[in-house]
Amino acid sequence: MRKIVKRYHPPGTPPGTLLPAAEGAAPARIRLLEYTAERCKEIAVESLDDCLPYLKTPAATWIHIQGTPSPTMLKQLGQKFGLHPLALEDVQNIGQRPKFDPHPEHYFLIAALPRSADNEVHIDQVSIFLGPGFLVTFTSNGEDPFEPVRKRLHAESSLIRGYPVGYLLYAVLDLVIDAGFRCSKNSARKSRHLEEAVLDSPSRDTVTTIHHLRRNLLVLRRMLWPQRDLVSAILREENNLIDEHTRLYLRDCHDHAIQVMDLLENYRDMITSLMDIYLSSLSYRMNDVMRTLTVIATIFMPLTFIAGLYGMNFGNGNPAASPLAMPELNWYFGYPMALGIMVAVAGAMGLYFRRKGWF
Amino acid sequence: MRKIVKRYHPPGTPPGTLLPAAEGAAPARIRLLEYTAERCKEIAVESLDDCLPYLKTPAATWIHIQGTPSPTMLKQLGQKFGLHPLALEDVQNIGQRPKFDPHPEHYFLIAALPRSADNEVHIDQVSIFLGPGFLVTFTSNGEDPFEPVRKRLHAESSLIRGYPVGYLLYAVLDLVIDAGFRCSKNSARKSRHLEEAVLDSPSRDTVTTIHHLRRNLLVLRRMLWPQRDLVSAILREENNLIDEHTRLYLRDCHDHAIQVMDLLENYRDMITSLMDIYLSSLSYRMNDVMRTLTVIATIFMPLTFIAGLYGMNFGNGNPAASPLAMPELNWYFGYPMALGIMVAVAGAMGLYFRRKGWF
Amino acid sequence: MRKIVKRYHPPGTPPGTLLPAAEGAAPARIRLLEYTAERCKEIAVESLDDCLPYLKTPAATWIHIQGTPSPTMLKQLGQKFGLHPLALEDVQNIGQRPKFDPHPEHYFLIAALPRSADNEVHIDQVSIFLGPGFLVTFTSNGEDPFEPVRKRLHAESSLIRGYPVGYLLYAVLDLVIDAGFRCSKNSARKSRHLEEAVLDSPSRDTVTTIHHLRRNLLVLRRMLWPQRDLVSAILREENNLIDEHTRLYLRDCHDHAIQVMDLLENYRDMITSLMDIYLSSLSYRMNDVMRTLTVIATIFMPLTFIAGLYGMNFGNGNPAASPLAMPELNWYFGYPMALGIMVAVAGAMGLYFRRKGWF
Amino acid sequence: MRKIVKRYHPPGTPPGTLLPAAEGAAPARIRLLEYTAERCKEIAVESLDDCLPYLKTPAATWIHIQGTPSPTMLKQLGQKFGLHPLALEDVQNIGQRPKFDPHPEHYFLIAALPRSADNEVHIDQVSIFLGPGFLVTFTSNGEDPFEPVRKRLHAESSLIRGYPVGYLLYAVLDLVIDAGFRCSKNSARKSRHLEEAVLDSPSRDTVTTIHHLRRNLLVLRRMLWPQRDLVSAILREENNLIDEHTRLYLRDCHDHAIQVMDLLENYRDMITSLMDIYLSSLSYRMNDVMRTLTVIATIFMPLTFIAGLYGMNFGNGNPAASPLAMPELNWYFGYPMALGIMVAVAGAMGLYFRRKGWF
Amino acid sequence: MRKIVKRYHPPGTPPGTLLPAAEGAAPARIRLLEYTAERCKEIAVESLDDCLPYLKTPAATWIHIQGTPSPTMLKQLGQKFGLHPLALEDVQNIGQRPKFDPHPEHYFLIAALPRSADNEVHIDQVSIFLGPGFLVTFTSNGEDPFEPVRKRLHAESSLIRGYPVGYLLYAVLDLVIDAGFRCSKNSARKSRHLEEAVLDSPSRDTVTTIHHLRRNLLVLRRMLWPQRDLVSAILREENNLIDEHTRLYLRDCHDHAIQVMDLLENYRDMITSLMDIYLSSLSYRMNDVMRTLTVIATIFMPLTFIAGLYGMNFGNGNPAASPLAMPELNWYFGYPMALGIMVAVAGAMGLYFRRKGWF
Repeated sequence: MRKIVKRYHPPGTPPGTLLPAAEGAAPARIRLLEYTAERCKEIAVESLDDCLPYLKTPAATWIHIQGTPSPTMLKQLGQKFGLHPLALEDVQNIGQRPKFDPHPEHYFLIAALPRSADNEVHIDQVSIFLGPGFLVTFTSNGEDPFEPVRKRLHAESSLIRGYPVGYLLYAVLDLVIDAGFRCSKNSARKSRHLEEAVLDSPSRDTVTTIHHLRRNLLVLRRMLWPQRDLVSAILREENNLIDEHTRLYLRDCHDHAIQVMDLLENYRDMITSLMDIYLSSLSYRMNDVMRTLTVIATIFMPLTFIAGLYGMNFGNGNPAASPLAMPELNWYFGYPMALGIMVAVAGAMGLYFRRKGWF
Repeated sequence: MRKIVKRYHPPGTPPGTLLPAAEGAAPARIRLLEYTAERCKEIAVESLDDCLPYLKTPAATWIHIQGTPSPTMLKQLGQKFGLHPLALEDVQNIGQRPKFDPHPEHYFLIAALPRSADNEVHIDQVSIFLGPGFLVTFTSNGEDPFEPVRKRLHAESSLIRGYPVGYLLYAVLDLVIDAGFRCSKNSARKSRHLEEAVLDSPSRDTVTTIHHLRRNLLVLRRMLWPQRDLVSAILREENNLIDEHTRLYLRDCHDHAIQVMDLLENYRDMITSLMDIYLSSLSYRMNDVMRTLTVIATIFMPLTFIAGLYGMNFGNGNPAASPLAMPELNWYFGYPMALGIMVAVAGAMGLYFRRKGWF
Repeated sequence: MRKIVKRYHPPGTPPGTLLPAAEGAAPARIRLLEYTAERCKEIAVESLDDCLPYLKTPAATWIHIQGTPSPTMLKQLGQKFGLHPLALEDVQNIGQRPKFDPHPEHYFLIAALPRSADNEVHIDQVSIFLGPGFLVTFTSNGEDPFEPVRKRLHAESSLIRGYPVGYLLYAVLDLVIDAGFRCSKNSARKSRHLEEAVLDSPSRDTVTTIHHLRRNLLVLRRMLWPQRDLVSAILREENNLIDEHTRLYLRDCHDHAIQVMDLLENYRDMITSLMDIYLSSLSYRMNDVMRTLTVIATIFMPLTFIAGLYGMNFGNGNPAASPLAMPELNWYFGYPMALGIMVAVAGAMGLYFRRKGWF
Repeated sequence: MRKIVKRYHPPGTPPGTLLPAAEGAAPARIRLLEYTAERCKEIAVESLDDCLPYLKTPAATWIHIQGTPSPTMLKQLGQKFGLHPLALEDVQNIGQRPKFDPHPEHYFLIAALPRSADNEVHIDQVSIFLGPGFLVTFTSNGEDPFEPVRKRLHAESSLIRGYPVGYLLYAVLDLVIDAGFRCSKNSARKSRHLEEAVLDSPSRDTVTTIHHLRRNLLVLRRMLWPQRDLVSAILREENNLIDEHTRLYLRDCHDHAIQVMDLLENYRDMITSLMDIYLSSLSYRMNDVMRTLTVIATIFMPLTFIAGLYGMNFGNGNPAASPLAMPELNWYFGYPMALGIMVAVAGAMGLYFRRKGWF
Repeated sequence: MRKIVKRYHPPGTPPGTLLPAAEGAAPARIRLLEYTAERCKEIAVESLDDCLPYLKTPAATWIHIQGTPSPTMLKQLGQKFGLHPLALEDVQNIGQRPKFDPHPEHYFLIAALPRSADNEVHIDQVSIFLGPGFLVTFTSNGEDPFEPVRKRLHAESSLIRGYPVGYLLYAVLDLVIDAGFRCSKNSARKSRHLEEAVLDSPSRDTVTTIHHLRRNLLVLRRMLWPQRDLVSAILREENNLIDEHTRLYLRDCHDHAIQVMDLLENYRDMITSLMDIYLSSLSYRMNDVMRTLTVIATIFMPLTFIAGLYGMNFGNGNPAASPLAMPELNWYFGYPMALGIMVAVAGAMGLYFRRKGWF
C-alpha cells in the first residue's frame, strides 16, 4: 500500500511540529487570484508577504500553493490568517483522511483528489482554508489540478465571480469529487476487460492483476468514503461562510460523492465476482484436465495390459512345452482375436465415457 | 456494467451546464394532458410554448416529455416553471441515483424504471417535477411507459381526476415501483431454471450465466434501493403539494418498494446459493472422475506388472541356461497360474473398492 | 421460491382494485363468535349481512373468514366497517409482508403463519382488522388455524372473555408467532440429521438437500423477520384499542418473536456449517482417493519399468551377439536378482509412504 | 443444538399456563437467608409458607430455589409477592433468552449461566425477582452455583450486608457474568490445541471437532449477547430498587459482559481461521500428493516406453529378416545405449522438476 | 491468543479485591514530576507517602508508576486520592479493554499501548487517573514508554507546562495512540513481503505466517477499536478537568485514532487478500501439476501400448505358424512404420494440447 503515502511524526513529538522541507524539494509555487463580480486578475507573487495587501481589499482572494510548502511559509501563513498549528501540521503531513474542521473564524478541510497514472491510483491531498473573503488551497503534488476552475473564473460570464468566496470552495470541491468518477470508471473498465480474459484463459497473472485492482479499489474507497461525510459536515455547519445559495450546489456535490461511492461498490462487486470466476475457472479446467487423463488412462491401460499379456514368454517360444502355455499364440486367428478384444474394450470404454458426458 | 449509463461532465465543468443534444437524436416528444374531476383531455402540443396557457387554468396539467430533451427545451422549462439549473442538468445526465429534492415551490424527483429486454435489465431514468397544479415527467428512453396511467385518467370513474395533482405523482411512482416486481420476478425465474441445470450438468457456460445474473441483480439493487428512501423522504416532507389522502397511498407505495427489495434479496441469496452449488458440483464430479481413474489404474497396474514380469527374457528362451531363470515359464500350469493370480488381484482390488464405496 | 406466493397486479393497475375470485375456488367460509365475560356463542352465518346485527351489541364480536374472500364480500366489509380499499386489496393479494397499519378507527395487520407440510415450509397470510368491539380475521388457506383460540374462548374460565377485544388480538397473534417455534424446530431437526449424513457419506443429494433447507430458511426468515417489528409497532402505537393489561402480554409475544428469530439464526449457522463440512468432506475424500492412486502408481510404475527392461530383446536371444547385450539375462542369478530389486523398490516405496502417513 | 433446551407450550396454549412437574423430578429445594448489616442467618425452610414471616422483617431476605419448582409453588409465590403469571411461566419454561422486565413493584430478570461439562457448554437459566427488601432466585439445574456469594454474606466484613438488597442482585449477576470468562477461556484453549493439530496433521476428525467448537460458540454467543443489554437495561431503569452506589458496581459488571463478548469474538475468529487452515492444509497436501504422482509418472512413463520399444519383436529375433527390423538390438553397444538414453531421460526430467521446485 | 493477557478473579470474588503481588515481581517504581509554567523538576520518591506534600502545592504533579503496583500501594493511593476500589482493581487486573470512567472528582482511563517485539504484537495496559492538578499513570510492563513526554516537559519552550494538567493527559494519550501507527505499519510491511512470497512460491509455512499475522491483527483491532471511543467519550464529558484549548488537541488525537483503525482495516483487507491468493496459487499449481501429468501420460500411454502391441508373441517367432500372426513383424518396413505411427501419435497429441494451451 505504498500508494497511500501517510506521513506521521514519531510518537511523542509535540503537536504542531513542522518538519523542514526535504532536501532538493522544489519550493512550493504560490498563485494569487483576486476577483470581484466585475473582474478577475491573477497576480504574480513570490512569497506570502506579497499576498497580504490583497487580503485587505473587499475583493475575494484565492491563494493556491502548489507543491510542498516550507515550514517557514506555513508558520507565516498561520500567523497571518490565524490558523491552528495542528491544521498546518496536517497540511504538511500528507496522506491525511479527508476531514472538516470548523474553526470560529475559518474552515479547514482536507480532501482527497484521486488520479490514475501508470495503471495505478494515486491520491493527492488537497488542503483548504476558507475564511471570510479568502480561500487558501494546497495540493501536495507536482501538477496544478485547478486550472479548469481558474479558466471559469476568468470567463466573462463566470457564475463563480457573482457569489461569495464559499462558492469558489464549492467549485474546487466539485472538481475534486468529480475526479472520482473518472478514476473509478477507469478502474471499472479495466476490470471489465479482465473479466473476459478470466473466462477465456485464466493465467498466473490473472490473480496478480485482480489483487492489483483490489488494492487500487481499497485506496479509492478508504479515501473517498470520508469525503462524503466531509460535504455533509459542511452542510450541517451553521456559519455564514457558506451562503444559502451555495448550499444548494454543495448538496449536489454531496449527491455526486454518493454516486462515486456507488460506482466504487459496483467495482468492488465486480472484483469479488472476478475472483469467484477465476477460482471456478481453475476448478473447471482441472475437471477438464482430469477427465482427459482419466479417459485416456482408462482406455489405454486395459489395452496395454492385453498387449502385455500376450507378450509373456510362457512356453518360451516352444509350442510343445505345454499345451496350456499360451496356446492362443499359436492359434490361426490369435492375433486378430487379440486386436478384436482391444478394439472392443476401447469401444466399450469410449461409449461409457460418452454416455457419462466426459468428452 | 455498461447497463448503468451514467453520464457525467468532465471534472471542472460549471454546474448546470447542459450539453447540446447528440447528433441524429430524435427530438423529444411532448404530450400534454389537462384534467379536472369532470373531464380529461389530451392536447397536441409542438413546443413548450404551447403548454403555457394551460398552466394558468385551475385544471391540473400533466406534461410528459418522452426522449432526450434538447438544452433549449430544458432552459425554457427552467425559466417557465422556476426550476433549478442543477435539476435540469440531472434530467439530461441520465443514470442518476433516485433522489428527492424538495424545493420551496416544487418537488424534483428522479426515479428508476427497470425494464427487462434481451435477457438484460435496463434502467430508464424518470425525472419528475411536481408543482402546484402541474406535473412534468421525463423518461429517457424511446417508449412511453405511462400509457396505463393515461388510460386510467381518461376512464369515466377515474380516481386520479378526483384528487389534486399529487395523486397523479403517486400513480406515476406506483407504476415505476411496481415495474420492479415484474423485473425481479423475471430474473428469479431465470435463476430457478439455471438451478436445475447446475445440479444436473454444470458446464462452462454456467459460471458465465451466473455472473450475468449477478450483474443484472447489481444493476437492480443499486437503482431500486435508493427508491425506497425516495418515497419515505416524500412522506416525511411537510408541504401541501401532497395531501393527506395521497400520503396513505404513498405509504402503500413504500410498502411495495420494500417488497421489491425483499424479492431482490431472495434473488441474491439464490445466486449465492447457485454459485455454491456450482462449485460443489464441480468438486463432486472431480471426485467422481478421480475415483474412476483410481479404480481403473489400481486394478490394471498390478496386472500389467505381472504380465510384464513374465515377458522378461531371463534365460533367453533357453530353459537350460539356468534353473533359476524364470522356471515358471516352463511349468505345465505356468500360464493358468499367471492368469489365476491376475484374476485374484483384480478381484481383491474390486472388492476393496466396493467396500470403500468407490463404485 | 414458488413457496412465497406473492400476488401482485400488473403495474399501472388502479390501487385498491379487487380481482374476481378464481374460477372453481371454494367460497370463503364465515364464522362469527360473540362473547362477553359471561358467555360465548358461535353463530352460524351465511353472509356478512348476517353479521351486522351483532356488531351493534356491546358484546365483543369475532368474525373469521377462512379461504379466499370474493371481491363482493371484501367491498361489503369495507363499507360496513369503514376499511381502506388498499387494506382490502392486501387481504386479497396474499403473500404480503407482515405489517401494521394503524388507522384512526381501526388497526389493520398482516401476519405470516408458517406451516410445515410435505417437507416444505409454507406461509399462510393472516389478515386482521381490529376495531372497537370487533375483530375480523382472514386466513388464506384451507384449514382453520384458530381452533385452539376458539376452544379457549368457549372454556368456562377463559381469560380472553374477561378482557376487551384487544386481548383476543393478542391470543391470535401469539398463536401465529408460536407456530414459528414448531416450524423452525422441525427444520433444525432435519438439518441435524443431515449433519451426520454429511460427515459419514457426502453424496450428490446432499447439496440438493442443503440447498432445499436453505430455501426453507429463507422463506421463514423473510416472513418472520418483519413480524417482530409488527408487534413492537403495535406496542408503540398510542391508541386505546389495546389496553394496558394486554400490552404486557403483547410484550411477551414480542419476546417470543425474538426467540423465533434466534432459533432461525441457529438454523442458518447450522446450514452454513453443513455446507462447509460437505465441501471439506469432498476435499478430504479426494485426498484419500488421490493418495491411494499415488501409492499404487508409484509402487507399480518402477516395477513395471524393471519388468519391461528385462523384456527388451537386445541380443535377440542370441547370447553370443555382444557381451554387452543384456548379459544379466544369462546370469545364473539374473531372475532372482531382478525379483529382489523389485521387492526392494516396492518395500522402499511402501516404507516412504508409511512414513509420510499416506496409508 | 440439543444443548439449548428451550421449552415452549404448543401454540394456542393460554399464556401463563404452568405445566405439572415432570414425574420423578426431585422437588425444588428452598434456601432462605436473612441478613442485616450486623448479622446473616440461614434459615431452614420446607415450603414457601415458612418464608412469609421473614418478608415482614426490615432485614433483607434472599430466597433461593434450586431445581424445577412445582406449579403450586410458583402460583403461591406469584400470589405472595404479586408477580406476573407470564414471568412465572418463564421461570418454568427454561431456555429463555436473558431479559429484564421492570414491573412497578419488582424487577424480573432472566440470566444465562454458562457451564462447561463433558467437553460441552451448557447454559443454566437463572431467574431473579428483586423486590423491596427481598431477592428470589431460581436456577434450573442440580447444583447450587451461588455458594461463593453465600460465603461472602456470612463473612464478618461482608460488603454485601452493608448495602440494600440491590447490591445482592449485583453480586449474583456478577457471578453469572464472570462465569462466561471461565467458559470462553476453556473453549479458546481447546481451539488453540486444535490449531496445532490442524497444521500438523489434518484428519477426518478435525472437521468434526471444529464443527463441535463452532456449535459451542453459537450456544454461548446467543445466550450471552443479550446479557449485555440486560445489565444496561437495569442501569437505564429509573427506580430506587437499585441505589446509586450499586449502579457503579453494575457498570463494572456491564464492562465485564462486554469483555466476555470480546473473548467470544476472539474465539469465533479463531474457529473461522481454523477452518481456513484446515481447508488450505487439505489443498496443500493434495498438491503434495499430486506432485509426487506426477514426478514418478513422468519419469517412469518414458522409461517404460523405451523398454517397451526394445521389447518389440520386429524381425522376430531373426537379424536377417530385414536390415531395418530393429538393428539396434544387434548393435554391439545397443543395450548400454538404451540404458544411457533412459538415464538421460530420467535425469532430464529430474532436473526439470527440481528447477520447478516440485521435489 | 496468549498475547492478550487478561487477568480476572474467579467468579464470586468480592469486587475490588486486590491480589497480593506475584512472588519475585520487581516492585513498581514511582517517578514524580512537578511542574509549573516556569519550571519542571523530577523528584526522587520512594513511596507514595513521599508524594503527598507535592499534591498540596499549586504546581501540577505527575506521578508515574512503572511495573505492577502492590495492593498496599494501590489501597494507599485510593485513600489519598479518593479513587474507587473497582478502578484500582482494573489497574491491577491488566488486559482490560480501553475505557473511560468519569467520576465526579477525577477521570479514570484505561488505554492500550501496542508494542512490536520478537515478531509479535504486545499490548501494555496504561491506566490513568486525572484529577485537579495531578495525573497518575501506570504502565504494566518493564520499560517506561513516557520518556519522550518527560523530555518535552523539561524542555525550555515546553507547551505542556503552559497549560493545565489536562494537556499532559493529552500528551500521554497522543503518544499511546500514535504508537498504533508504528505498530500497524510494521505489520503491514510484513504482510507486503509475504505477498510477494505467496505469489512466487506458496509453501507450507505460508499459511502459518498468514495465520500469525491475522492473530496479530486481531489483537490490535480488539484493543485499539475501543480506544477511539475512549477519546470521543472524554470530549463529550462536560467537566472542567479538560479545558477548551486541550479539547482541540484531543480532537486531533481522535482523528489519529481513526487513522490507525483505517490502517488496520487496510492490513485486514491485505491479509484476506493474501489468503485468497494463497489458495488460488495452490489451485493454480495443482492445475499446472495435473496438466503436466496429463500431457505426459496421454502422450506416452498410446506409445507404450503400441510398443506393447508389437511385443506380443503371436506366432512365437515362427513366421510360418500363421500368416495372420503379426505379419507386420516380418515386413521390411515394419519397424520404421511402428516408429512412424508412434511419432505421429505423439505429434498429434502434442499439437492437440498446444492448441488447448496446456503447455
